[in-house]
Amino acid sequence: MSSSYPQTELTRVRRMAARAHYDRATVQAILDTGWICHVGFTVDGQAHCIPTAHWRVDDTLYIHGSNGSRLLKALADGARACVCVAQVDGLVLARSAFHHSMNYRSAMVYGQFRVVDDEAEKWASLAAFMDKIAPGRRQEVRMPDDNEFAATTVLALDIVEAVAKMRSGPPKDDEADMAIPVWAGVRPLETRFGTPIPDPAMAG
Amino acid sequence: MSSSYPQTELTRVRRMAARAHYDRATVQAILDTGWICHVGFTVDGQAHCIPTAHWRVDDTLYIHGSNGSRLLKALADGARACVCVAQVDGLVLARSAFHHSMNYRSAMVYGQFRVVDDEAEKWASLAAFMDKIAPGRRQEVRMPDDNEFAATTVLALDIVEAVAKMRSGPPKDDEADMAIPVWAGVRPLETRFGTPIPDPAMAG
Repeated sequence: MSSSYPQTELTRVRRMAARAHYDRATVQAILDTGWICHVGFTVDGQAHCIPTAHWRVDDTLYIHGSNGSRLLKALADGARACVCVAQVDGLVLARSAFHHSMNYRSAMVYGQFRVVDDEAEKWASLAAFMDKIAPGRRQEVRMPDDNEFAATTVLALDIVEAVAKMRSGPPKDDEADMAIPVWAGVRPLETRFGTPIPDPAMAG
Repeated sequence: MSSSYPQTELTRVRRMAARAHYDRATVQAILDTGWICHVGFTVDGQAHCIPTAHWRVDDTLYIHGSNGSRLLKALADGARACVCVAQVDGLVLARSAFHHSMNYRSAMVYGQFRVVDDEAEKWASLAAFMDKIAPGRRQEVRMPDDNEFAATTVLALDIVEAVAKMRSGPPKDDEADMAIPVWAGVRPLETRFGTPIPDPAMAG
């Protein structure tokens, strides 16, 4: 299996092409960074852009939801989707307004979702989702009963047409602006877990 | 002006309707929380979902980019867009796998962008963007010269069809699961600025 995704009409980055990355490791790492993706799709000529939790197993990206979800119905019907996971890593403060920027990592996957009908794949995918949310936890909680399992739709998108785009590092100012006496650099943005908040209903 | 957005065919939330909010203050606060939005739009039947920086002035959401950007060209041509800003606030760990969830705030705006041709609005919007990134900074940096100003396209989306959706608080488990001896609650996710990283090229 190639270590990179092919550049296609949809994924070839034209602007700032140096920021584009097609290697699987980079794309997959960015997909795994995010808790949610945004799914772009079209219904009756109207674009939608819906945030939803996602997870990845090897070369497949999964999302899930209730059977009645409009998002899932449209995607199950074969809508051509565009999935994006993006993370802002910092604000880039330059000496000129024009060169202000953001450091970020984004990954985009194009394709059509399929409904995961195979029960074994569906179980394995939901287990993988639990492992992403809280490793080891599925050994402690009650796993889905038949009704819950049936009420959940899992959709899979095979990652074959994908690209990452990212920026990192300091501002890039014009030479003529370098003497402007203003602080320049990056204000990093960091996401972390805060102190866990126990359910008030938890037996003390 | 009404304090709420009307519920339309596009914005009426069907599932988990209790999580939907149509009041302007809630929608606008969520829009302002994010550094980037995702823009969903369709070109030749293919959906796209592109992350880009955004900012808000009153009832208008702005994005910007280089004149050559495919995103901006498609939107300037009148593509019917869906803009989403979403923030994950925490992982909700329940006693059953099924009731695991995420706390989040999301805002969605539907509509068609317009190119900001009016120079005064364009200047004012770019100044507002600088003020969002770093209040007061535009008094210290070099503001755009004519070429930079002309090379930048600003697009505006009037916020008239919009909705917020959010979840907060502890897990909601089935009564029968309450005695399962597993920690339950919320792992909050917090985004904050880290220690500023000065540009190595900065005069020491």
